Amino acid sequence: MKVVLASGNKGKLKEFNQLLKPLDIEVVPQSHFNVSSVEETGLTFIENAILKARHASQISGLPAIADDSGLEVDALNGAPGIYSARFSGENATDEKNNQKLLKDLQDTPEEARTARFQCVLVYLKHPADPTPVVCQGSWEGSILREARGDQGFGYDPLFWVASKNCSSAELDRDTKNAMSHRGKALSKLIKQMSDT
Amino acid sequence: MKVVLASGNKGKLKEFNQLLKPLDIEVVPQSHFNVSSVEETGLTFIENAILKARHASQISGLPAIADDSGLEVDALNGAPGIYSARFSGENATDEKNNQKLLKDLQDTPEEARTARFQCVLVYLKHPADPTPVVCQGSWEGSILREARGDQGFGYDPLFWVASKNCSSAELDRDTKNAMSHRGKALSKLIKQMSDT
Repeated sequence: MKVVLASGNKGKLKEFNQLLKPLDIEVVPQSHFNVSSVEETGLTFIENAILKARHASQISGLPAIADDSGLEVDALNGAPGIYSARFSGENATDEKNNQKLLKDLQDTPEEARTARFQCVLVYLKHPADPTPVVCQGSWEGSILREARGDQGFGYDPLFWVASKNCSSAELDRDTKNAMSHRGKALSKLIKQMSDT
Repeated sequence: MKVVLASGNKGKLKEFNQLLKPLDIEVVPQSHFNVSSVEETGLTFIENAILKARHASQISGLPAIADDSGLEVDALNGAPGIYSARFSGENATDEKNNQKLLKDLQDTPEEARTARFQCVLVYLKHPADPTPVVCQGSWEGSILREARGDQGFGYDPLFWVASKNCSSAELDRDTKNAMSHRGKALSKLIKQMSDT
């Protein structure tokens, strides 16, 4: 069975394909169908993931998987949250977002810099599927005072993983996938898709 | 802690209060705050439950619990699904909905009358909570050729529960709560709310 992935990220595509191959599922990127990005008008990760999956399924005619993820910083009352990718404004980049995060937390002491990554994965059988599979995962950490590491993407260089004594941008891919918010959500998704 | 229930159903209110009392949670009906019903514009049970919870939380200023549920009939390609309460049109009633269901299935033989109830429960800490607790439950059965029993509501009189040799409208409340779609989703919700 073919399933479209509502994402342009090649790393994610590779990971999904590796994990879904035993279920005879081939994951194809939405770029194969010229799926444009959809406006993320939801107020929750779940709503945004459903919007993305529905859009990709509609255009491709295939079942769709989408993820939505973000960083919740306690000292910022949960910001940037669902706005993580757009934290620094319209022309946001990973670098600008990280700079804004450092600035917003410059007066926040170590013990109050707790944060977590959140990820929601959605599997929609067709655009009007009323009961998508929805899986959530989170990853606890804290925010550093300067960037470390060059793996990963997004806020990884600022996300301190105490148990590994490094930032999430210093972890190799397999280690990160085994402990990350996305890795946890993905293993739940694989389990649920195997059961059905 | 007080939590608003985005429902006008007194039976549900009682059940939620019984089960949430050990967590020191008092569930108050949205009618206390004159919360009007919100338009259910979602295409999934999850989206509709989130919409209802958000609306009730916005108006009451409290955390909110909402449920959305429906009946999926395989021979009708999953209908009435998210439209279960509105199946017979604008002035739908339980009776009219049941009549329409019987009519739509009049030529469907016994072995093809399989169906399931679906329920999604959402707990939203505040209107902009990006990570609501979401729990799902389902209940397998089949559709009878005539109504049986006068307990329950909605499609209960037509929903055959093979393991109990009766319709879901013939089950007493405790038995139904222990095995129903809503009962399963609720026990997951209680567990998640206890853990956090």
